[in-house]
Amino acid sequence: MEEVIVRYIGKKPSLKNPILIEGLPGIGNVGKLAVEHLIENIGAKKFIEIYSKDFPPQVFINADGTVKLVRNELYYYKAKNRKQHDLILLTGDYQGLSSSGQYELAHTILKIAKEFNVKQIFTLGGYGLGREIKEPHVIGAATSRKLVEKMKSYGVIFRENEPGGGIVGASGLLLGIGKLYGFEGVCLMGETPGYLVDPKSAKAVLKVLDRVLNIDVDLTELERKAMEIESIAQQLKDLERAAREKSEDLQYIG
Amino acid sequence: MEEVIVRYIGKKPSLKNPILIEGLPGIGNVGKLAVEHLIENIGAKKFIEIYSKDFPPQVFINADGTVKLVRNELYYYKAKNRKQHDLILLTGDYQGLSSSGQYELAHTILKIAKEFNVKQIFTLGGYGLGREIKEPHVIGAATSRKLVEKMKSYGVIFRENEPGGGIVGASGLLLGIGKLYGFEGVCLMGETPGYLVDPKSAKAVLKVLDRVLNIDVDLTELERKAMEIESIAQQLKDLERAAREKSEDLQYIG
Amino acid sequence: MEEVIVRYIGKKPSLKNPILIEGLPGIGNVGKLAVEHLIENIGAKKFIEIYSKDFPPQVFINADGTVKLVRNELYYYKAKNRKQHDLILLTGDYQGLSSSGQYELAHTILKIAKEFNVKQIFTLGGYGLGREIKEPHVIGAATSRKLVEKMKSYGVIFRENEPGGGIVGASGLLLGIGKLYGFEGVCLMGETPGYLVDPKSAKAVLKVLDRVLNIDVDLTELERKAMEIESIAQQLKDLERAAREKSEDLQYIG
Amino acid sequence: MEEVIVRYIGKKPSLKNPILIEGLPGIGNVGKLAVEHLIENIGAKKFIEIYSKDFPPQVFINADGTVKLVRNELYYYKAKNRKQHDLILLTGDYQGLSSSGQYELAHTILKIAKEFNVKQIFTLGGYGLGREIKEPHVIGAATSRKLVEKMKSYGVIFRENEPGGGIVGASGLLLGIGKLYGFEGVCLMGETPGYLVDPKSAKAVLKVLDRVLNIDVDLTELERKAMEIESIAQQLKDLERAAREKSEDLQYIG
Repeated sequence: MEEVIVRYIGKKPSLKNPILIEGLPGIGNVGKLAVEHLIENIGAKKFIEIYSKDFPPQVFINADGTVKLVRNELYYYKAKNRKQHDLILLTGDYQGLSSSGQYELAHTILKIAKEFNVKQIFTLGGYGLGREIKEPHVIGAATSRKLVEKMKSYGVIFRENEPGGGIVGASGLLLGIGKLYGFEGVCLMGETPGYLVDPKSAKAVLKVLDRVLNIDVDLTELERKAMEIESIAQQLKDLERAAREKSEDLQYIG
Repeated sequence: MEEVIVRYIGKKPSLKNPILIEGLPGIGNVGKLAVEHLIENIGAKKFIEIYSKDFPPQVFINADGTVKLVRNELYYYKAKNRKQHDLILLTGDYQGLSSSGQYELAHTILKIAKEFNVKQIFTLGGYGLGREIKEPHVIGAATSRKLVEKMKSYGVIFRENEPGGGIVGASGLLLGIGKLYGFEGVCLMGETPGYLVDPKSAKAVLKVLDRVLNIDVDLTELERKAMEIESIAQQLKDLERAAREKSEDLQYIG
Repeated sequence: MEEVIVRYIGKKPSLKNPILIEGLPGIGNVGKLAVEHLIENIGAKKFIEIYSKDFPPQVFINADGTVKLVRNELYYYKAKNRKQHDLILLTGDYQGLSSSGQYELAHTILKIAKEFNVKQIFTLGGYGLGREIKEPHVIGAATSRKLVEKMKSYGVIFRENEPGGGIVGASGLLLGIGKLYGFEGVCLMGETPGYLVDPKSAKAVLKVLDRVLNIDVDLTELERKAMEIESIAQQLKDLERAAREKSEDLQYIG
Repeated sequence: MEEVIVRYIGKKPSLKNPILIEGLPGIGNVGKLAVEHLIENIGAKKFIEIYSKDFPPQVFINADGTVKLVRNELYYYKAKNRKQHDLILLTGDYQGLSSSGQYELAHTILKIAKEFNVKQIFTLGGYGLGREIKEPHVIGAATSRKLVEKMKSYGVIFRENEPGGGIVGASGLLLGIGKLYGFEGVCLMGETPGYLVDPKSAKAVLKVLDRVLNIDVDLTELERKAMEIESIAQQLKDLERAAREKSEDLQYIG
């Protein structure tokens, strides 16, 4: 069995210099949330499923009782007007479990990207700060100084030595290996506490991407999810405070 | 040395559209107990041994002092009447240790299944609830909605989002990869506390399978084992209670 | 770089149906001690070094300041009389780190064994009991019932379900995979507490092997080492007792 | 994707029997500090980048916001006078994560070394003592007794059984595998506490190397860094003492 299996769903779409956008599970699930929202909102169509021996040996169970082997998926979108670009969107259930598997998967994605003549890559992710954030900024990294400057003009922030640990996983590798293969690319990282899934951070990332790519994405649904999560976070905090106060009362009494 | 070694014992049996039934070690050992009971009860014959570099580097010692390299095994059974099907039964000492090994082993089994023109797969396992169960239900998952409906008619229960973590290991992979290769299949999971081996849960799973496949399996031996385990579980509980009471007494005295 | 590198030292010896004897690091280092003693005592000559990507990435430093890449080694011994057999002796610094590496190494050794027309395999190891032992017995396992019976006549003990966990590592795999390839073999396990290296247990194992193979091995040196270790063990026990008594005194005073 | 990717930057340099000097991350980062200092100080030029699936799946972010896939790098230096040698210098972000990857990387480096007709290898590292050191000695190991004697004449210390655990990682493997391939080599290990990066130890190592190779390296910058680290270490100690005294005061009051 091959390390990675690429399986076309239907026939190969014909795309013109598409832009590849990656959003796989990671910190705050920011990238995955953003790309999944994008896929749904613009009505992108699945055309490739990717299976790997480096994903967990696991099936998920769909709502109707059927099983689904864990995988990554590629969707495409054809530009609606001259300001837009054709898009290839990558999301999925997991990233590779091992270092070697991560490299193999990034390599596979980039081979597909080359085949479709991808001209630029955007990888989306979260930048975990471990503290609450009022308005998440979008931090960037890119394959060239020219792209760094271009992204700054869209409000993306570049801070020296941030993230300090670099970028780990698919969002980093697609740019890093991609650069070796001659691809241009940008990583957009939404600031996030990193405790819970973070639709607010995903929204911040998509807002920037929308400005760059003129996708005209409707962010209402992400806003609704963000409010839901904020309400859950508030409840958790209330519970914690109540528990703390109760334990303080007991100490006082004792 | 190859990743996986398939070794025929005697000559290849001639089977007609057999059904593959898997039961490897797992939660409560439900699947393994069920398939081993089935093999013994219907007198199935071993025809393949499977060795893998992803099993532990270990031999077991038989009662007569001889060694046995850890492995998986395939048995066959030829239908006795027109209501029955030819069967291939899979059991063994271990599942693959790594993710990659699990995929490789499932792939190997499915290649054999294709060679023998297997028409349907049943994978058996336990669904660990972490609490005591009076009468274990049998939870299902399948490769198609049609099979889901068919299994419901046999009393198999399909609950949305259960098991929440999907199905991990051979029981999941054989269906998940199998589906990609065009196989139809069902996973039957017996509810189990998951603490001890659980013949009661294995019996519940076999009862369903019997109804579906008309195997006419005698479950007396599994019932006997179930009573043995229940008696052991009761003794463990008595010991625990005694220990707890004694420690409470001491606190009282002190 | 290949998984395993086999490197001949000098030219291939010509051996007549040799017997392979394995003693690699393990519980109480019993097997390694036994085979190293044997090599030295009978003046066996090194003819193969085995390197593997599955050994630690490590060199040891010889007494003269030169480095030595960690490895396994094969020695040979030519029979001195008609009662003896030609021997191939396997020892080394490590066993493979991973399951897959262990299988690969065993496979490599067996390929060499086949090439030299090895007619029987003896694997030596320790059987850890976790308690002190006056006179260690030698427990056995074998590839055939005939060999089990033969070994019993040499005083080797076969107890049902012992060792309960089977035999893990090279001592098990060489017999288990060997059996698949048509080799006959025996594992001799010296009982050992398993806390320290155990020359006494190694001596017990060699005594049996000597009776079977008429090697005429002088065990004096192992006896000397056994006394050394016993004296160290006694000192450790005295220190422990002293520490315990002191701590009890303090409690009493307090 | 291959295990290891070797990528030339510009055209292959023409070198005459160069000496290979390795300094990758390790204890006290001694080797890496030494080689990086050397590269900068003698103005060596990068000519090879090495990527591997066994490095973490990670990019670092340069000061200008561009990304850099983690890698190893080879630099070359052409002798300035007849007393000097052409040099190849190896440094990088990581060593291989797995045993197998370490072997593969060492093998790759040695293939390049062979291609460039390398005549000798120096591997640099730290020897962690876990205690403070006034003046770090340089401990050695080599591929031949002749080299051991030669190095002694340069003040390198060879102590029996030191380091007791041998040499783990690239510094060990390049010599160990190198020896199998016919390379001569020396490992120079600077004594180091091992707690912090240790420019003082790197300086000690470079001083020896300078005497052997007549590189005329200016060590001022390493001295400056060593003073910086010593000042940081002192501050850490002061903080610790203050914290300890404060906690003792509290106990006294209590």
